[in-house]
Amino acid sequence: MRLAVIEGDGIGREVIPAAVKVLDAFGLEFEKVSLELGYTRWERTGTAISNDDLETIKGCDAVLFGAITTVPDPNYKSVLLTIRKELDLYANVRPVKPLPGITGVTGRNDFDFIIVRENTEGLYSGIEEIGPEISWTKRVVTRKGSKRIAESACKLAKKRKNKLTIVHKSNVLKSDKLFLDVCRQTASANGVEYEDMLVDSMAYNLIMHPERYDIVVTTNLFGDILSDMCAALVGSLGLVPSANIGEKYAFFEPVHGSAPDIAGKGIANPLAAILCVKMLLEWMGEPRSQIIDEAIAYVLQKKIITLDLGGTASTMEVGNAVAEYV
Amino acid sequence: MRLAVIEGDGIGREVIPAAVKVLDAFGLEFEKVSLELGYTRWERTGTAISNDDLETIKGCDAVLFGAITTVPDPNYKSVLLTIRKELDLYANVRPVKPLPGITGVTGRNDFDFIIVRENTEGLYSGIEEIGPEISWTKRVVTRKGSKRIAESACKLAKKRKNKLTIVHKSNVLKSDKLFLDVCRQTASANGVEYEDMLVDSMAYNLIMHPERYDIVVTTNLFGDILSDMCAALVGSLGLVPSANIGEKYAFFEPVHGSAPDIAGKGIANPLAAILCVKMLLEWMGEPRSQIIDEAIAYVLQKKIITLDLGGTASTMEVGNAVAEYV
Ligand SMILES: CC(C)[C@H](C(=O)O)[C@@H](O)C(=O)O
Ligand SMILES: CC(C)[C@H](C(=O)O)[C@@H](O)C(=O)O
Repeated sequence: MRLAVIEGDGIGREVIPAAVKVLDAFGLEFEKVSLELGYTRWERTGTAISNDDLETIKGCDAVLFGAITTVPDPNYKSVLLTIRKELDLYANVRPVKPLPGITGVTGRNDFDFIIVRENTEGLYSGIEEIGPEISWTKRVVTRKGSKRIAESACKLAKKRKNKLTIVHKSNVLKSDKLFLDVCRQTASANGVEYEDMLVDSMAYNLIMHPERYDIVVTTNLFGDILSDMCAALVGSLGLVPSANIGEKYAFFEPVHGSAPDIAGKGIANPLAAILCVKMLLEWMGEPRSQIIDEAIAYVLQKKIITLDLGGTASTMEVGNAVAEYV
Repeated sequence: MRLAVIEGDGIGREVIPAAVKVLDAFGLEFEKVSLELGYTRWERTGTAISNDDLETIKGCDAVLFGAITTVPDPNYKSVLLTIRKELDLYANVRPVKPLPGITGVTGRNDFDFIIVRENTEGLYSGIEEIGPEISWTKRVVTRKGSKRIAESACKLAKKRKNKLTIVHKSNVLKSDKLFLDVCRQTASANGVEYEDMLVDSMAYNLIMHPERYDIVVTTNLFGDILSDMCAALVGSLGLVPSANIGEKYAFFEPVHGSAPDIAGKGIANPLAAILCVKMLLEWMGEPRSQIIDEAIAYVLQKKIITLDLGGTASTMEVGNAVAEYV
């Protein structure tokens, strides 16, 4: 097993070392390959990610990723989008689950669902044309793309409550009929219970009734919006992990960004990154991955927490405490 | 002044009569033209809206609209989208404001903002192609479309806190750069303070920090998703009105749908429809429109409220009580 470790920019450089501490505590055989990618590198060299880097990453089995600052410069190629595409990481999996003792913005903690976001097509097709008077982007839905994400979602559903909610906007986007139909067929074929919901209603219902959902499957940009939104249910963007999974590779990243405003102070919350380690271990089939939940419950209860949660612990202190428990 | 009244289907037929009671209480000179459009009509006649209907509507100045049931039948033409397009109602204006004594899902009521949604282009372009293996829709952004919505937003901002938040996804959709640039230029030219935010961050921030915003301007489908989501802040989809405004015409509709599950029982909440009457009066420049806020505060305090708010009043009882106060 070979793991690429990409800290990236800003607080990525703080939360990833803390998460690696936790990973190391499991005492597994790992070859770690560090890569310096992103904005800081781009500023210095003019390249955020090179073809050589991509080859190195493809030589690994999985990636642990921090965060990368993006800039509107047209020459700046998004590292994240490049890697998702090159590694064909078609399933973006975002669990939305409360942490013990932390209540999100709605004060409830009776929910536990996973957003499964198609990660390669939709509005991320890259097919666009820009002009001074008119610009457009093609939103692409394919049978193949819809089928494989529906299958990923069904596989997860079968391990859980066997309930799938298909989120689309086929009352307006006729192209979403294809996504909806393929998801329905796939759910039927796999014996998974399903319902469907329009994306606007879903945005409302996820906030009003988050306890109703188990697996939520949707297209690329809808998943992007809904998963950020749902971080408010958990309490903070700093608490939610994500996995980008393909046939061959897997890539784990906290949902939060590089947070330049608090970077360099050692106060960033490493829990999202540590939950990424849990997802990595799950993906590897490591049965002890659950210990991370216990360890997090422990540090929360002992108030070994960072500033954003009202504590005074540093990023590394939280990482060390979780690692020690493990 | 000629007003088209379209009750539509389901609870549209209950909330609109209640709202009309309130409108009538103002004693203004109005010619009312009733049209029966929508699903019920389609079932009976095969046409949800005809060219004659459109001509009749174009002969009016404004429309008060209830709700129309949609069905996935490819022959069923969306009445709402047809009217928006034919009347060139380019600004969809959705105020998000708490009602006295009602707390939404986050328990806070310190917010008061307006979502201004571009209503004619983006993913609603209708330019699409459907195939068995691949389907696509073109997301279109034009300078003209962006400019007029930016101007509407700035006009509203100048009457309020003079603060504009431009919501886009230009880190992925290069076509959104046009929208963002035009909005920035328009805000600058009008002396309106502005900031911009990515739509995913905005979904999170609107739930976490709704008090930060004044006027939020965005493209068509982003506005659709965000405004439904924000109904959770207010407490219910049944409490939020909207206006679709063009150069010549204006169209007012509650954000909720036809709610077939509770239709016919006389228990639907008419407050969103009544708030539409308030928006209609504002649009007409009627200074007494504010009385509706007072009247709503009064019925809420007297607990003359429908089932969804924990009361026992009928739709018409609420309508009558508001009308009497007026
Ligand atoms: C940074 C950006 C390109 C990315 C996306 O839009 O997918 C991010 O928002 C995410 O959700 O991972
Ligand atoms: C019914 C549907 C076509 C419509 C839309 O998508 O605009 C609705 O959701 C709205 O927000 O008015």
